[in-house]
Amino acid sequence: MQSSKKPSPPLPHMFERYRSEIAKTLRTSISDLQLKEIPNLLKYHLGWVDQEGNMSQTASSQGKALRPTLCMFACDALNGDISGAVLGAAALELIHNFSLIHDDIQDQDIERRHQSTVWSIWGVPKALVAGDAMQAVGDLTALMTIESGVPVNVVLKVSEILTESYLEMIEGQCLDLQFETRTDISAEDYLGMVGRKTGALLRSSVHIGALIATDNTDITDAFSEFGSHIGRAFQIRDDYLGIWGDASETGKSNDNDIRRRKKSFPVVYGFEHASGSAKEELISIYNKEIDNDDDVAKVMTILEDVGAPQYSGHITEKSAELALSSISAIDLPHWVDQEIGDLINFLVNRQY
Amino acid sequence: MQSSKKPSPPLPHMFERYRSEIAKTLRTSISDLQLKEIPNLLKYHLGWVDQEGNMSQTASSQGKALRPTLCMFACDALNGDISGAVLGAAALELIHNFSLIHDDIQDQDIERRHQSTVWSIWGVPKALVAGDAMQAVGDLTALMTIESGVPVNVVLKVSEILTESYLEMIEGQCLDLQFETRTDISAEDYLGMVGRKTGALLRSSVHIGALIATDNTDITDAFSEFGSHIGRAFQIRDDYLGIWGDASETGKSNDNDIRRRKKSFPVVYGFEHASGSAKEELISIYNKEIDNDDDVAKVMTILEDVGAPQYSGHITEKSAELALSSISAIDLPHWVDQEIGDLINFLVNRQY
Repeated sequence: MQSSKKPSPPLPHMFERYRSEIAKTLRTSISDLQLKEIPNLLKYHLGWVDQEGNMSQTASSQGKALRPTLCMFACDALNGDISGAVLGAAALELIHNFSLIHDDIQDQDIERRHQSTVWSIWGVPKALVAGDAMQAVGDLTALMTIESGVPVNVVLKVSEILTESYLEMIEGQCLDLQFETRTDISAEDYLGMVGRKTGALLRSSVHIGALIATDNTDITDAFSEFGSHIGRAFQIRDDYLGIWGDASETGKSNDNDIRRRKKSFPVVYGFEHASGSAKEELISIYNKEIDNDDDVAKVMTILEDVGAPQYSGHITEKSAELALSSISAIDLPHWVDQEIGDLINFLVNRQY
Repeated sequence: MQSSKKPSPPLPHMFERYRSEIAKTLRTSISDLQLKEIPNLLKYHLGWVDQEGNMSQTASSQGKALRPTLCMFACDALNGDISGAVLGAAALELIHNFSLIHDDIQDQDIERRHQSTVWSIWGVPKALVAGDAMQAVGDLTALMTIESGVPVNVVLKVSEILTESYLEMIEGQCLDLQFETRTDISAEDYLGMVGRKTGALLRSSVHIGALIATDNTDITDAFSEFGSHIGRAFQIRDDYLGIWGDASETGKSNDNDIRRRKKSFPVVYGFEHASGSAKEELISIYNKEIDNDDDVAKVMTILEDVGAPQYSGHITEKSAELALSSISAIDLPHWVDQEIGDLINFLVNRQY
């Protein structure tokens, strides 16, 4: 695929701008946990320490912190007080990471962000508890926004949005589990599922940041919609990279999504649009264990033949356009418009 | 043991009085979940439906609903509006049951309340997600107290107490996991662990009910302390019944706690007080798989020889006394005093 050869656009400046503030708040939240062992599991998962609890030397296993960055940026863009937003931002990152720890158990994934997953090192019971702890700390951190002067009714709204969105996230995970045994999922079914599983928390990230800045619901609703569209753009690009991305950049095992018979967007599109012997082959490969590179290559060829990578790119770009148009009526400062452009360019064209 | 032969005191009237109101609220909370399958797992776990989703004919697999009943009673006792308390009560029951679903995964328990556990039927991934969903619905239900007229600052306080107490609960689970591989746990260590694992949510149940009724912190603090003590009384009685109780009444497999080498209070006490060959035997049995009735009988004899059942009874009664004295300065109506007496008699002497 041509597009996978292009260099990745740089990580937009906003990620750097809020990084240390977000990290500081996350560290404070987690260090409030009193138990010896579990905080280390959380810090390991977040890429701060290695398995033995020693400070990690590389930043490669740390995530992009997309959700907290979006929350901070939304608040900042609307001239809000980012010292209130940072607690909401940290809560979002904790909830996101709680879901990853549980997701890895659910999917029996042994690698994430270039390192072994928590359950694969410490076992299911401890990983389960670590996820629950991460989630509870996330909830508490959201409630703590009250201490930074956010009005009580806004704090309550933030908590409600956060809880509703991770309920949506869980619903998405359930649908995902149901999809595993089906070969008749439409692209539309898939978008509905992933909109819950990944989209809800991304939408909430932008929504919560906006809510901390303003009580104008026209604006907060528009930002929420913006978040929803960039969430889809992000996820479909992720699915694309899960097949055609460079594993050394994405941090996932090579060909992981096909080898694990993951029904990501390009695969679902392939099932919907392949016909004849290609479709039969696709079904037959997906009905057994995929244990050789030949099968992976065959699936990739079928997907490429029906134009799955192009269609994935089309949906990503379409979502980016919808994101832009959902906030086009809001008068934002020049720097904000510019950074939104950078953000969207990154989400649509990133290689990792 | 003599005391296990006595008939159980009746379930206090308060359980019956609030039952239908609590059940109605729980049903509403869960029916708001939109997914087809997961709500059935939750309803099954709660004993409302069987594995196929058909209405359950027996109530035997339903829990006592201790936590929501305590919440309603605390509010009622202080002349509060129980229509506000019932949402808090439902939230507590949901959080408690979330922890049971995850606990059963963690401990690989195959039976609870006379029926197979969720993970043993539907597998770990779905049980994990079902637990997460139960927890999120619990959080949302707590926030919904705002709609029954509870002031916003009280709603926030309720959410905070709930989240903090399930964080404590999780910390207790972690300690419990750590204890599994140790034979040097003191009775005091154990009480600290179980005070978190079980006590925190029981304490919060009483505390939340009181908070919805009054803003007098002398009273709410006293109720919280009362909850803490009856929580301990409840747990130590539970541990006693886990060894000397009648399995047909408790709903657990016969001799489950010893056979599973569970380090419950009497066992920890036994490790602390047995000496010489008895202690060596205890350690040797606990260091292998216990797969025959002989080993179980041997452990029971050692525990009985050091007086573990009597000491467990002593701690249960002592906790009950402390519970009573923590609210003795509060002037409560006669019916409340009477029902507190019934409650404590039940918790201390129950056979199930």
